[in-house]
Amino acid sequence: MNQIKIGVIGASGNIGRYTHCENIVKYTDGAVLTAVSSSSKASVQKIADHYCVQAMENAEELITSDQVDAVLICSSNETHVPYTIRCLEEGKPVFLEKPMANTLEEAQLLLEAEKKAGEHMVQIGFMRRYDPDYIEMKKVLDSGSLGAPLMVHCISRTRYTNLKNRPDSEHITVIGVHEVDICRWLLEENMKEVMVRFPRSTTVETGDSRDPQFLLMQTENDILIDVEATANSYYGYEILCEVVCEKGTIRLPVTPSVMVRSYLNVGQALPPDWNDRFVVAYRNEVQHWVDYLLGKTDVPGPGTADGYEACRICDAFIRAQKTGCWETV
Amino acid sequence: MNQIKIGVIGASGNIGRYTHCENIVKYTDGAVLTAVSSSSKASVQKIADHYCVQAMENAEELITSDQVDAVLICSSNETHVPYTIRCLEEGKPVFLEKPMANTLEEAQLLLEAEKKAGEHMVQIGFMRRYDPDYIEMKKVLDSGSLGAPLMVHCISRTRYTNLKNRPDSEHITVIGVHEVDICRWLLEENMKEVMVRFPRSTTVETGDSRDPQFLLMQTENDILIDVEATANSYYGYEILCEVVCEKGTIRLPVTPSVMVRSYLNVGQALPPDWNDRFVVAYRNEVQHWVDYLLGKTDVPGPGTADGYEACRICDAFIRAQKTGCWETV
Amino acid sequence: MNQIKIGVIGASGNIGRYTHCENIVKYTDGAVLTAVSSSSKASVQKIADHYCVQAMENAEELITSDQVDAVLICSSNETHVPYTIRCLEEGKPVFLEKPMANTLEEAQLLLEAEKKAGEHMVQIGFMRRYDPDYIEMKKVLDSGSLGAPLMVHCISRTRYTNLKNRPDSEHITVIGVHEVDICRWLLEENMKEVMVRFPRSTTVETGDSRDPQFLLMQTENDILIDVEATANSYYGYEILCEVVCEKGTIRLPVTPSVMVRSYLNVGQALPPDWNDRFVVAYRNEVQHWVDYLLGKTDVPGPGTADGYEACRICDAFIRAQKTGCWETV
Amino acid sequence: MNQIKIGVIGASGNIGRYTHCENIVKYTDGAVLTAVSSSSKASVQKIADHYCVQAMENAEELITSDQVDAVLICSSNETHVPYTIRCLEEGKPVFLEKPMANTLEEAQLLLEAEKKAGEHMVQIGFMRRYDPDYIEMKKVLDSGSLGAPLMVHCISRTRYTNLKNRPDSEHITVIGVHEVDICRWLLEENMKEVMVRFPRSTTVETGDSRDPQFLLMQTENDILIDVEATANSYYGYEILCEVVCEKGTIRLPVTPSVMVRSYLNVGQALPPDWNDRFVVAYRNEVQHWVDYLLGKTDVPGPGTADGYEACRICDAFIRAQKTGCWETV
Repeated sequence: MNQIKIGVIGASGNIGRYTHCENIVKYTDGAVLTAVSSSSKASVQKIADHYCVQAMENAEELITSDQVDAVLICSSNETHVPYTIRCLEEGKPVFLEKPMANTLEEAQLLLEAEKKAGEHMVQIGFMRRYDPDYIEMKKVLDSGSLGAPLMVHCISRTRYTNLKNRPDSEHITVIGVHEVDICRWLLEENMKEVMVRFPRSTTVETGDSRDPQFLLMQTENDILIDVEATANSYYGYEILCEVVCEKGTIRLPVTPSVMVRSYLNVGQALPPDWNDRFVVAYRNEVQHWVDYLLGKTDVPGPGTADGYEACRICDAFIRAQKTGCWETV
Repeated sequence: MNQIKIGVIGASGNIGRYTHCENIVKYTDGAVLTAVSSSSKASVQKIADHYCVQAMENAEELITSDQVDAVLICSSNETHVPYTIRCLEEGKPVFLEKPMANTLEEAQLLLEAEKKAGEHMVQIGFMRRYDPDYIEMKKVLDSGSLGAPLMVHCISRTRYTNLKNRPDSEHITVIGVHEVDICRWLLEENMKEVMVRFPRSTTVETGDSRDPQFLLMQTENDILIDVEATANSYYGYEILCEVVCEKGTIRLPVTPSVMVRSYLNVGQALPPDWNDRFVVAYRNEVQHWVDYLLGKTDVPGPGTADGYEACRICDAFIRAQKTGCWETV
Repeated sequence: MNQIKIGVIGASGNIGRYTHCENIVKYTDGAVLTAVSSSSKASVQKIADHYCVQAMENAEELITSDQVDAVLICSSNETHVPYTIRCLEEGKPVFLEKPMANTLEEAQLLLEAEKKAGEHMVQIGFMRRYDPDYIEMKKVLDSGSLGAPLMVHCISRTRYTNLKNRPDSEHITVIGVHEVDICRWLLEENMKEVMVRFPRSTTVETGDSRDPQFLLMQTENDILIDVEATANSYYGYEILCEVVCEKGTIRLPVTPSVMVRSYLNVGQALPPDWNDRFVVAYRNEVQHWVDYLLGKTDVPGPGTADGYEACRICDAFIRAQKTGCWETV
Repeated sequence: MNQIKIGVIGASGNIGRYTHCENIVKYTDGAVLTAVSSSSKASVQKIADHYCVQAMENAEELITSDQVDAVLICSSNETHVPYTIRCLEEGKPVFLEKPMANTLEEAQLLLEAEKKAGEHMVQIGFMRRYDPDYIEMKKVLDSGSLGAPLMVHCISRTRYTNLKNRPDSEHITVIGVHEVDICRWLLEENMKEVMVRFPRSTTVETGDSRDPQFLLMQTENDILIDVEATANSYYGYEILCEVVCEKGTIRLPVTPSVMVRSYLNVGQALPPDWNDRFVVAYRNEVQHWVDYLLGKTDVPGPGTADGYEACRICDAFIRAQKTGCWETV
């Protein structure tokens, strides 16, 4: 097998259509898109026509099709676990978008299903591990030249999220989960305790959710991580990170763009959303998945163990949102 | 009176000799240095000779001298309150270095002494209020164009502090106190609750103190302030600050220096210590004090009320270091 | 036709092997690599095996193969014109690396050959037009918000070029030609006059060529362009550009990488060579060529008219190197 | 003598009033302002009142007053040479603003007058030599770590200059003269040849002068210096400089100010004029002059030899403006 036939479940969502389908078709070596499905029949047919692939009736048909070797799941969160388990039952590898599961119980079911199906059958969509800047950051950190890491300062700002009727927990499961995983990966440590504190809330795009939120986590070796999680930054999209070591620090660069000097100002444009920022990471994570399936690398991507650990930490954060105290993971 | 005759108590310390005496003599309009004193007789005579001023036997002699209109106190911390009270008894205005007092009780005594002596007799050395960058930051914040402030991220790193036999509380009283005051000034709000968390400690320049420390404070309107307080950063001196507002943020610039491109790198030198960073602020705070004494401005500098509030907040932080919990100020 | 079968002539060179073949195979939608040829038989077979494509005996065989719809030529400079003319005679579209031709006479021959074969049959490898930063720069410029352009300051530095036995003219044909084309594209103007001045030469990696060289060109509307062309910068690879307009300027950003704070310094790594800097541009130029051939866009890429104009300007520069005077293009 | 009594001629001009008088009174150790004069009687009286010093009838009275030990001349350009010569005849040291003289003949007269009066009697106001950034740049350059200098790229932009009825030569004598001197100082070399080229002119604040102008100069060792001299940049005031060496480059930093993130942008304010940019340099040049007069340093500041050389180079530039050719200095 030197071409993996990939089916995408949830192809009509934003990330399915404009990120994953595009990337498989245009930018992934050794992979071909063969089938798509979605809860929205009308839109999935359009996508299928656009790429000249098959529109499946439903996820089950896609999973069991002999035109599909491997499945990329980016449908709605509650379907992640059942669809993945069905793929594993069929012996098909899965690329699963975050979050891996909605509850720890569900996550446990998935781990068991994978245990039966074989090792490294599932890659979780923690795409930041494939971002060149984070990779460079880890390289400097791992070189040891700056000594041991002591703290990490993280900032995650999205420009606009409709916060009406959103529960507080989405700051954890949608925003915080990325910081949880990337810090585990950077530091190679698990989290011990977490806390949440609510700053004054923004009144811009007022909703029912408290925004921003300030998250703290501490690793087994006491490295302290603070995260500003902002859903409505208004001004733009930015992911910032500084690892503070004993002898120096490492910091993500500001997203570059041309420097414009205009009346009494020198400035640079900031990206409006995540797609511009992590365009390479999204491509490389799927490429890596395909390379692993083709045996071109024997290093698997982030797997269910990572997804499960992220779930456990998020779970503790959601408890901490309610208690206001430090919660053990 | 169009020249204030200033006596400096504690003239032989680093900040006395190289900052305040120099600034009074060279950079302060309307002021003249007339007398110095110090616990170290030998060194104070040298300083007196250097500036052609009088070396006083002790603080008392300086305070009561008719060659001294106003007193700048930068002697050791435990002398701050008694010397200031003596000045006030003599009716002489005081410029007092931080911390205003070692304990809240002491601070209370000083407030009472000033009440008897008259309003605005004491200016506290919160020099950051005179830093052009912080001033510009406040101007942008006060313009309202970015909406209300929600959070402040502060970083305070000094390059080298001998931490042997230093109590944990010095991170609060020496480093944190600056962040406490500048945030009160920027936000025009008092603090409600504080917390301290200890990250993994550095092993560079190992000492008995826990370093770095991570401080959190929350204002009356719930603005959340986080502070990385690092005594041994090893790499250099840096004060960073970002005020996060509803529609944008304001951030101190990196201290500029020439950009050097060398083998596969583009870099800038960082300052080794505070003196380079706040050179203008130290000059301007004393100039403002003198201007106020001469009636050139009717806006007093930071006073005992500010010093007292800082003491109260530091007090809560020191409690929080022990309890690990949020402490009410 | 919805897949263009591409043959690469000169596949075993650096840009052939690591840039164009890779990009066609991995990153180009609607294209498939089918054949490669090279003057080095041994190495071309390896490449053919690696990609599972055919190794042709020679360029002629590749050009006339029915497995090849379109030809990408990146063989040595003296073959550019003859190979391209053969492709045109066979009615096959060509992507041709710079320089289009070694002499104006040759370039003229190519133009005539294309005139017979049909419009826009040849795309020239001026890849900077596909760099996102230059594209953003042009967008700001074309918006008119900064007024008319008056000057352009360009810097082109490569880290290491063996300069032994290289003629002075290579600074023009290898380095300057990129600046010539990108300025023509940015400003939408042709050059009127050019000049060259020789600064003190570097003694690092000493060779026979004069390095750096300083180029000046002036457009029909008198926009003045200065170019620092450095072949042995030693420190790293950098392409800088600032367009100076009546009301402001636009400047390429420094290539971003993580900011590392270490002993008394804050710095960023610089790229060692062009491949890191223009990775996206190299992909996008070939994608655009393929899109044009497939009719997905009706805007052709840079063509022989652009290549010819660049030749004329380089020709004037080479004259100017000898005369030391302003030379008319 | 441990206090120099300084008289300022031309005290009512911008640089006299807001820069030099202020700096002498407020920021210069060892100096006292004792007298001012100006062609504008009314305004000089106001200044005299403000500083409680004497308003002299005219320059002659000031120069001959026994209340004046040393004279700072910042009156209009045509008075520079005659007033300086009168001071030298009286044996009084002079700080003379640029330009030293309007013509080479005049400059020659001044040199002869100084020869009679004694060495280092005149300091010329080349204040950039006292700018901390240029000083750091020279330090890195002189360290030799980057090899020999090969080129210097200079940019000088002022925000607004009324260009009606201004001769082309003012770009040389007002703007270019600073770059001439600072490059001589940085490189410790004299200029051999110069050239001027006129880019397309701005139509903003249209005047009769050609603006911007592009200047080239080459040193005895062939270091090539290019200067963008812009009188009406519209957007702000900026002085940029990059020294290109064999193994790396050194560049002035962008003037720092707080970084503001607002809608899809991150930006920094730029200074409107020179006063903000060179505030420290203006203070330090006068301080150095006074220190030299008081014998605190035996290194004189930039003198008439530097002023004369700058005149010679400017003279060649003005010739080059007319001929369009390289002119020998």
